[in-house]
Amino acid sequence: MSQKTGIEVAEARRLVMDEAAPLGAEIVPTAQALGRVLAEPVVSGRTLPPADVSAMDGYAVRSADLIGADSDSSPELAVVYEVAAGGQGGAPLRAGQAARIFTGAPVPAGADTVVRQEDCELREDGVRILVRPPAGEHVRPAGEDVRAGDPVLAAGARIGPAEIGMLASLGRTLIHVHRRPQVAVISGGDELVEPDRDPSGGRIVSSNAYSLAAQCDEAGARADNLGIAGDTPDDLERLFRRGLYADVIVSSAGVSVGDHDHVRPVLDRLGCRLRFWGVRMKPGYPLAFGRIGESGPFVFGLPGNPVSAMVTFDQFVRPLLLRMGGHSACFRPVIEATLTEPLTKKPGRLHFVRVHLKRDGEGWTATSTGNQSSGVLRSMTLAHGLLVFPAEASELRAGTPVKVQVLDDTIFRETGPRA
Amino acid sequence: MSQKTGIEVAEARRLVMDEAAPLGAEIVPTAQALGRVLAEPVVSGRTLPPADVSAMDGYAVRSADLIGADSDSSPELAVVYEVAAGGQGGAPLRAGQAARIFTGAPVPAGADTVVRQEDCELREDGVRILVRPPAGEHVRPAGEDVRAGDPVLAAGARIGPAEIGMLASLGRTLIHVHRRPQVAVISGGDELVEPDRDPSGGRIVSSNAYSLAAQCDEAGARADNLGIAGDTPDDLERLFRRGLYADVIVSSAGVSVGDHDHVRPVLDRLGCRLRFWGVRMKPGYPLAFGRIGESGPFVFGLPGNPVSAMVTFDQFVRPLLLRMGGHSACFRPVIEATLTEPLTKKPGRLHFVRVHLKRDGEGWTATSTGNQSSGVLRSMTLAHGLLVFPAEASELRAGTPVKVQVLDDTIFRETGPRA
Repeated sequence: MSQKTGIEVAEARRLVMDEAAPLGAEIVPTAQALGRVLAEPVVSGRTLPPADVSAMDGYAVRSADLIGADSDSSPELAVVYEVAAGGQGGAPLRAGQAARIFTGAPVPAGADTVVRQEDCELREDGVRILVRPPAGEHVRPAGEDVRAGDPVLAAGARIGPAEIGMLASLGRTLIHVHRRPQVAVISGGDELVEPDRDPSGGRIVSSNAYSLAAQCDEAGARADNLGIAGDTPDDLERLFRRGLYADVIVSSAGVSVGDHDHVRPVLDRLGCRLRFWGVRMKPGYPLAFGRIGESGPFVFGLPGNPVSAMVTFDQFVRPLLLRMGGHSACFRPVIEATLTEPLTKKPGRLHFVRVHLKRDGEGWTATSTGNQSSGVLRSMTLAHGLLVFPAEASELRAGTPVKVQVLDDTIFRETGPRA
Repeated sequence: MSQKTGIEVAEARRLVMDEAAPLGAEIVPTAQALGRVLAEPVVSGRTLPPADVSAMDGYAVRSADLIGADSDSSPELAVVYEVAAGGQGGAPLRAGQAARIFTGAPVPAGADTVVRQEDCELREDGVRILVRPPAGEHVRPAGEDVRAGDPVLAAGARIGPAEIGMLASLGRTLIHVHRRPQVAVISGGDELVEPDRDPSGGRIVSSNAYSLAAQCDEAGARADNLGIAGDTPDDLERLFRRGLYADVIVSSAGVSVGDHDHVRPVLDRLGCRLRFWGVRMKPGYPLAFGRIGESGPFVFGLPGNPVSAMVTFDQFVRPLLLRMGGHSACFRPVIEATLTEPLTKKPGRLHFVRVHLKRDGEGWTATSTGNQSSGVLRSMTLAHGLLVFPAEASELRAGTPVKVQVLDDTIFRETGPRA
């Protein structure tokens, strides 16, 4: 049994990510693939544009006819036909001939240049060219974007709007992407009720199931809320067994060492080999990670306090889910901020301090959201990030540069255009 | 008619955002509200925790009984009952009495402190307390998180996982959020085919509808692809009329001044007052913005080239959609990066140069993705951001600090844990 107890955050993270691998592929419609990760390299089956096409409305000409052309000695060319986008040209242009052409239309054989209509003067029998463009001007050569056989997107690429447009232009309406991880969320505790039930008499709402499911969603996973297990090993085992279909089971509460902490005994019954139990962090010491069998679901037993559940999810479950979905950058952005007030703690555990971030010139300041009790969920609604207060440190003075994991990416957005 | 022509990017952005206002509210299940924006302030109807509760498994005690207690002279208290989470205590504790208590259970009347079980020694008739904790230790006071009547979330707050957990804990299973903008996407051009059709004979795939719909999705909007209009005013009018149900109509192509450019005449027919036409930028000069009637859909006539359509959407349509969805930070993150190579252009238009961004210590470097032709969609698949090459500038030297709008937020993420 290689279970480790009371380990450092960094080691716990390593033990989780050592197990992480992208899930297999599934086929999805390209139009629904935003944010997913390609599980195949995409090679172009087409040359785009398929022919030399005009980038402007104007006249397709032979640049040799224009040598010496300027507004004083402007050659007049015979306009022999017209080519629209999606149309076809006629016979190859001969000396002294031009073709009316529109944006996106194929440049006729013989022509090598397009003159914008603004630079031409229409005459009774033809067109006078008022400029002397370089050969090739306003022509988009065949294959300027991609050529048949070109590798266009690599396996592992994240699919954004440009990738979707590119795949559409290649006729790839279906693509292979990594499967989204399926998570089963379990809550434990006789005191819990669903949010639409009356929580009187010392009962409280099972809110972790809701915040954890939303965290799964943000990490690209699907979550099912399997509901609330009562404080008996049998009831907890029943819910864990219902979660065996999932890629990851996330439970909260009941993972400590008390009389009502049934998670670890139940995981034993289910053949779950724990990789670790207990991480030297605050919030969130009681935390179990393992896997059921060799290829069954990963299991996280998170602590029950709302902040502890969210923070431990963020540190360990989120990066695992992102990696399973095929992402390569799985960790929160980390910024350096200036602490606005002193912080103290006992040495021994790494603290994740919920902080408010504020721009200060090109940098940031970080200020605690106040009461850091792991029961104060408001500390999370007020937080832009988690300040990392290292395990062995006991004091951070005001003005100290600190590292902050950014929870809310929208703080990077601008409220007005800066550029 | 106040239509402006050939305006600067900043003015165009201002004219768009001057029209922007959050849409009305709709009611959605809290569990489905991730990423939406609250359209009501949320005031707590509950006090959480509802009573003083234990933060630990241990013994509830009267701190007065422990005065002088240490491991040598440890008082022994009678354990008179047990309280589990969700349970109720018994009679108020009297001097010399303790109650067995579990995490989340209400602290019995008379008791003011919880001693962790690790700090106690169980005896035949009671429990010896080995420590001398400060009064109130390991007790989470009623209302520590929120009190009934507290304002908890402000109108305009973005709903993340913590907000969802908080709303659930308050029993708020339904909430008012700003409606998502509905966009109708129209493509124009006889040369266009849907991605599952054969594009031979000079035809190309109507890929803009796909990239633009994905951009809408990223901006929190819903998009319907209304399909392809042929190169006649009547056909284009038919599609625009089909889009009148939407909050915003986005068309691409046909917005310039050529014989096949029918967007502006059709908008006239529909009673659309254009606020501007033509923005001094590259890619994307031909660009129309207006509104049909006083309260009908906003209309954007975007250029047809794939890169021009995406970049103009990003500059003008995206911030409008985010504002309509209730967001306050509507503009891309802007970072300062060091240019790795010289760039030149003619003065007169602001260029958005597609660049690859790379971390360089605490900063970033920016490198052009190569061919910046507005037909080269690969320049967008390769781009992390848009470098802002100011209108009147003609040269940016290697090593210059430049402003870059970040298109791909995931570049801020870490590939390994940094903290």
